[in-house]
Amino acid sequence: MRVLILGGDGYLGWPTAMYFSKRGDEVAVVDNFAKRRWELEDGIEPLVRIPSLHERVRLWKRVSGKQIDLYAGDICNARFIYKVMEKFRPEAIVHYGEQPSAPYSMESLGTAVYTQTNNVVGTLNLLFAMRSFTPEAHLVKLGTMGEYGTPNIDIEEGWITINHNGRTDTVLYPKKPGSFYHLSKVHDSANIEFACRIWKTAATDLNQGVVYGIDTDETRLHPDLLTSFHYDHVFGTVLNRFLVQAATGRKLTVYGKGGQTRGFLNIRDTIQCVALACDNPARAGEFRVFNQFTEQFSVMDIADKVVATAARAGLKVDIDHLPNPRVELEEHYYNAKHSKLVDLGLQPNLLTDSMLDQMFATVRANTGRVQDEVIMPTIKWSQENPRK
Amino acid sequence: MRVLILGGDGYLGWPTAMYFSKRGDEVAVVDNFAKRRWELEDGIEPLVRIPSLHERVRLWKRVSGKQIDLYAGDICNARFIYKVMEKFRPEAIVHYGEQPSAPYSMESLGTAVYTQTNNVVGTLNLLFAMRSFTPEAHLVKLGTMGEYGTPNIDIEEGWITINHNGRTDTVLYPKKPGSFYHLSKVHDSANIEFACRIWKTAATDLNQGVVYGIDTDETRLHPDLLTSFHYDHVFGTVLNRFLVQAATGRKLTVYGKGGQTRGFLNIRDTIQCVALACDNPARAGEFRVFNQFTEQFSVMDIADKVVATAARAGLKVDIDHLPNPRVELEEHYYNAKHSKLVDLGLQPNLLTDSMLDQMFATVRANTGRVQDEVIMPTIKWSQENPRK
Repeated sequence: MRVLILGGDGYLGWPTAMYFSKRGDEVAVVDNFAKRRWELEDGIEPLVRIPSLHERVRLWKRVSGKQIDLYAGDICNARFIYKVMEKFRPEAIVHYGEQPSAPYSMESLGTAVYTQTNNVVGTLNLLFAMRSFTPEAHLVKLGTMGEYGTPNIDIEEGWITINHNGRTDTVLYPKKPGSFYHLSKVHDSANIEFACRIWKTAATDLNQGVVYGIDTDETRLHPDLLTSFHYDHVFGTVLNRFLVQAATGRKLTVYGKGGQTRGFLNIRDTIQCVALACDNPARAGEFRVFNQFTEQFSVMDIADKVVATAARAGLKVDIDHLPNPRVELEEHYYNAKHSKLVDLGLQPNLLTDSMLDQMFATVRANTGRVQDEVIMPTIKWSQENPRK
Repeated sequence: MRVLILGGDGYLGWPTAMYFSKRGDEVAVVDNFAKRRWELEDGIEPLVRIPSLHERVRLWKRVSGKQIDLYAGDICNARFIYKVMEKFRPEAIVHYGEQPSAPYSMESLGTAVYTQTNNVVGTLNLLFAMRSFTPEAHLVKLGTMGEYGTPNIDIEEGWITINHNGRTDTVLYPKKPGSFYHLSKVHDSANIEFACRIWKTAATDLNQGVVYGIDTDETRLHPDLLTSFHYDHVFGTVLNRFLVQAATGRKLTVYGKGGQTRGFLNIRDTIQCVALACDNPARAGEFRVFNQFTEQFSVMDIADKVVATAARAGLKVDIDHLPNPRVELEEHYYNAKHSKLVDLGLQPNLLTDSMLDQMFATVRANTGRVQDEVIMPTIKWSQENPRK
């Protein structure tokens, strides 16, 4: 299968590219390296330095004998993505090529507008390019569980059947996203569903939970084939931050009460899910939605797990409750369905003690590079932020 | 009240500005004249030529003795709208300042991307400018009934209470828009609702039906205070097109079966509704949605009314069914609630025979300017269109 991976320099894009390449698919990656620029804006680096994408592609050739094609450019430039699509003619497009941080999108008017235009326009360009060059291709778009918010009813997988005043319809699940970033993903989903209706585009929207983990079978083939690990307040996720805090003798910073509950999954399962979607494509005209996570935890659940992990390593760690920089419910009902990927064959890698111990060991081996200044949240949802 | 009207050069913006000015409010209008440029792109003009906004503002001063402030600029330029907001400090902002045509948005990748970025970025800039300078102001945003699509259940006013698996929540009504334009309005609504949640913005989203009518009390004060009347396939609406076709001896062009049912209202009622919203503002943090129309008709209902109107004037008119250029249901359930504006005091002006006769007389007096080439639809939802 010819698989085009948008955002191939990213945390998930690079391991996904290696996975498909390893198993024999023809793989091309696209990236404009915007993420590395956003990191420079905020003075942030991943815990371990990541070689350039060109270097990793060259190294991958040496290690695996396989070629990954690299297209450097911006999908917000329609001419660029049209040319890539015309030349590579993918059968599946895995679309990670978006600005992925909620705090970044909340930093200023500039970053809010940038996030929404970048994400929405890139995807619109892609949809039109698919229509022109690969109308039969399958779009596998990464969304986020955060699009749903925390409704007081069960979260279904994308669609919900509503009975109302004696009549029934099946409609897109009503969403309540919690940042300008999450809103951009909702806008994207709506645009894609429309393309499926009018152009018979085949699309799978993967509403992903919080991803953790560093290693995949392919990243382990060579130290420089690694992917990024962010623990900072802009691009980091809660488990990563807690592991770094625990490894460096800091308190774990829980935002508010810590009852915020979300879906989580291992990076290996992201790759499994994306592969399952590609291998079992949506039908022409189908807008298919999967909720992509394996377990639900509250922030306090995660904090307790990290405290226990540190204890197993002989470290005592405390928990601190910060004023929540976000506007979100800190105690709420949360029951999100996630059976469709399991039905396709997903074998979950759960957040076991041994998984936590392994991540904690990797973090401890790299604490020398931890930057103190990027851990505490400075971007606030409801207040004035420094202008960017 | 200080009322800022965005899109003040438009079909609805100009009569709205005169209405508030006449009754004694302090009024400023903003426009970047983009609509006049889009008309030039497609070789389209309103049935009657419209003087420039500067001319109409000067004439209004002479006729009414009232001053309307004019700010010429683009709200997609954040610096511009920040300066307007800082200087004028509106208490109410009536936001018509968007690209309003579904066919225009479906013409090409360029017009789709333009429509979504123009509409979404302009509104984001406005929300941030409100937060900075007028956090207490009331945003009255024009949406469209087309955001809802044609669901098989009753359409509620913005929010719906869902019972699901034994639990209940009140959520934003799930939408299924039918063009990249309609999608842009859905994106906007979602962004505004979020601003209400995090910044306590007060907003009213007016999901408006198809507006008809030419005259208001203020446009009648002088021939050059008129507003635009579009009958073309890009900016025209169905009733206008049918009236022009009937007045010029053409057949009425019904798209497909003509069972497409929509809400309609008179331009006088648009102004009434906007004024009712401004005079009864949303609370801080409230995202209030009203469905703004007074009657439901199918396309065939409208065609039959125009045939009867022409017959009263002694003209025989036939109906032709064209292949539908849009992707939409041509027969469907449609029951949209619209009681909230009536509860606030709306006194509907209905589509009576005398209203139709009056519009038909105006159209017949101006048939000399009808351009044949702009009536038939050339923009198709599912097929390749000429690139723009």
